[in-house]
Amino acid sequence: MGLIGFGTIGVGVVKILTSNADQIQQRLGASLRLVKIADLDITTDRGVDVDPSLLTTDVAEVIDNPEIDIVIELIGGYEPARTFILKAIANGKHVITANKALIAKHGDEIFTAVQEKSLSIGFEAAVGGAIPIIRSIKEAFVANRIHTIEGIVNGTANYILSKMSDEQYDFDTALKEAQEKGFAEADPTFDIEGIDSAHKIAILTRLAYGTPVNIDDISVEGITRITQEDIQCAREFGYRIKLLAISKYDGKAIDIRVHPAMIPSAHLMANVNGVLNAVRVGDDLMEENILVGHGAGSLPTGSAVVGDAVEIARSIAMGSGCRVPAQSFLQSKPIPIQDMSEIESEYFLRFSVRDEPGVLSKISGILGNHSISIESMIQRGRSQQNNGVPLVMMVHRASERNVQQALKEIDQLDVVCEKTNLIRVEK
Amino acid sequence: MGLIGFGTIGVGVVKILTSNADQIQQRLGASLRLVKIADLDITTDRGVDVDPSLLTTDVAEVIDNPEIDIVIELIGGYEPARTFILKAIANGKHVITANKALIAKHGDEIFTAVQEKSLSIGFEAAVGGAIPIIRSIKEAFVANRIHTIEGIVNGTANYILSKMSDEQYDFDTALKEAQEKGFAEADPTFDIEGIDSAHKIAILTRLAYGTPVNIDDISVEGITRITQEDIQCAREFGYRIKLLAISKYDGKAIDIRVHPAMIPSAHLMANVNGVLNAVRVGDDLMEENILVGHGAGSLPTGSAVVGDAVEIARSIAMGSGCRVPAQSFLQSKPIPIQDMSEIESEYFLRFSVRDEPGVLSKISGILGNHSISIESMIQRGRSQQNNGVPLVMMVHRASERNVQQALKEIDQLDVVCEKTNLIRVEK
Repeated sequence: MGLIGFGTIGVGVVKILTSNADQIQQRLGASLRLVKIADLDITTDRGVDVDPSLLTTDVAEVIDNPEIDIVIELIGGYEPARTFILKAIANGKHVITANKALIAKHGDEIFTAVQEKSLSIGFEAAVGGAIPIIRSIKEAFVANRIHTIEGIVNGTANYILSKMSDEQYDFDTALKEAQEKGFAEADPTFDIEGIDSAHKIAILTRLAYGTPVNIDDISVEGITRITQEDIQCAREFGYRIKLLAISKYDGKAIDIRVHPAMIPSAHLMANVNGVLNAVRVGDDLMEENILVGHGAGSLPTGSAVVGDAVEIARSIAMGSGCRVPAQSFLQSKPIPIQDMSEIESEYFLRFSVRDEPGVLSKISGILGNHSISIESMIQRGRSQQNNGVPLVMMVHRASERNVQQALKEIDQLDVVCEKTNLIRVEK
Repeated sequence: MGLIGFGTIGVGVVKILTSNADQIQQRLGASLRLVKIADLDITTDRGVDVDPSLLTTDVAEVIDNPEIDIVIELIGGYEPARTFILKAIANGKHVITANKALIAKHGDEIFTAVQEKSLSIGFEAAVGGAIPIIRSIKEAFVANRIHTIEGIVNGTANYILSKMSDEQYDFDTALKEAQEKGFAEADPTFDIEGIDSAHKIAILTRLAYGTPVNIDDISVEGITRITQEDIQCAREFGYRIKLLAISKYDGKAIDIRVHPAMIPSAHLMANVNGVLNAVRVGDDLMEENILVGHGAGSLPTGSAVVGDAVEIARSIAMGSGCRVPAQSFLQSKPIPIQDMSEIESEYFLRFSVRDEPGVLSKISGILGNHSISIESMIQRGRSQQNNGVPLVMMVHRASERNVQQALKEIDQLDVVCEKTNLIRVEK
């Protein structure tokens, strides 16, 4: 095997191959030998013992190396990862990657390339780290018509929301702590804006329904607008707020989106906290399966990479090619993506309004005009954070189009002080 | 394929093969053809459309049928299931079974037989129904040194305990309702006495640590002694009671047992309710993974069986033999089982005592003599159910041997009205 990228996950892989070599040997009947490790930086001490002759700054020593059967790409990002992987495939190498952005965006090209060469590609580490969700969809839930995937697939966002819920942190404090603990990057945009979750749900959607997904078609909303007020009102209504990646298929079109969602407090998914990830799969046969585990980190993610390596090594040992279709279905066929305006949901709406008579009547009037009916409501005293008074409502199932139109009108009212916050409810 | 046993799961398998044939075709690239179904009763209408020519009362038409590559055994129990499976293997058939009792008891014999013939055996349905736990241990967690498995693996027991916790049912009422709803058998002994859970933890232990397990070595305690009093006191201390199957390996010996356990209410495992099952796997790399799903039922279990069939069909299509070692490790080596008296745990103790002075001093004196220290205590007024007054304690970590010895002495006291109930705490 050859490794491209000697960062956090790469170090995890090397540690596992060294410290758990006996375990791998006992289960594979062979050892996994690391032949080369390519990285631009081969001088920094990573705290792991590695033969210096393995290290190279020249990626060709991995990709073009005839001694290497499996190329593991762990540099992340679109380029040069894409070029390296395609070149490795062209050279007849099996590929393993933890690169969700790349698989989400360039999946078609990469899957086509491996299929043409009858090679294997492992990407268990790309979604949910150590959670065996990709293997489960591709191999266990194989007779099942999956109709729902709901994932808490970003540990950074989940850590922040958990701290906001359980320790009343505000968003900025929670983010800062996540960064200090190494759970968030210096630039956390991909995580807190939901982009990372969108990459992951695109991958799971492809595997579950057998369709390519254009990531630009996914409606994405991050967690930056969630306030302590939202968290507390959610609790009063019996919910917790989680950043959910959702993909539902009704046999005609796919409803795919990433946004903060209110989940009933008693539901298992509401109790997946901290950096834990979880994916819930709903289908026609087994009702639901929920898989929970660590979605990031050097060793958890490294263990998923090594799991893929063992799988590929087993196929090589049997002299067989790719046993399981790379993208779960033999043929990928396009399924239309539903426009976000077409979905229906229950909603949590937090208005910030002037503390004066007639406000409720104006707002409820506009909601009523758009066929939106109020289920329950909390009106609080003046909050310290802004000049408006929070007015919070749960509304019954309504169409997204109607709700957005109503909010547009409401936000133009003189009595409304700031943009209304909307959180969808998932039950 | 040939089916032996056309009961609940068998009907599920037939339904799935019919209704989801297109799904299987799209993922396998071939269809799974059912050639024969053997059952003693081939006249009862099972509510599923099946060509009458497929049905036979003669099991040889399955086992000896040259058209059949895969034999699916779904009759359950030790015999004649064992004989049928061994004969099928001798005839060169791959085997799929949902029979946990058989695999737990006769695993050595069956695994040896398939290995000698380089055949595959699928038994995903034997533990946790639709939960892909066996596949995950054998294929995903393959580089990981697993040290802990904790499972809620019996839906009947979990349903009863959930009803007792959430709706204050007493044990008998909860059991009766489970029977009425089809979640418990007419004779529920295996489920409520923990025997079914012991079979399942024996199987998972074999796969996780690579050791055969003699099921008679497993310490097993059911849920029949759990009372509403226990449930309520547990809640007051911040716990829920679950029937847990536990297997821990410290590198030297295995601590394997089945018993009701107190789990902190906020833990995910405490919130796996109703007929849901869950298995938590702890290891050196990914910390923990929890898999939750339906552990029983016609379609969930059937879907696990069909998943195994697709896996085997893929290997047949590739012309390769058994890719993954049947029992997870290439070689199974015996690991000693720790004697139950050697474990340490925190304990919940419910004494039933006379309402008179000096009782607490006598009991705490005996506990102290055995180095058992009290963490917290609840003493209630006279209960209606019995003549004694409940005295409930949580005690700090202590050795099982000391606790059992102390309880033996305490239960002989004049002031103690009935056998003390002990529930171990798992954190």
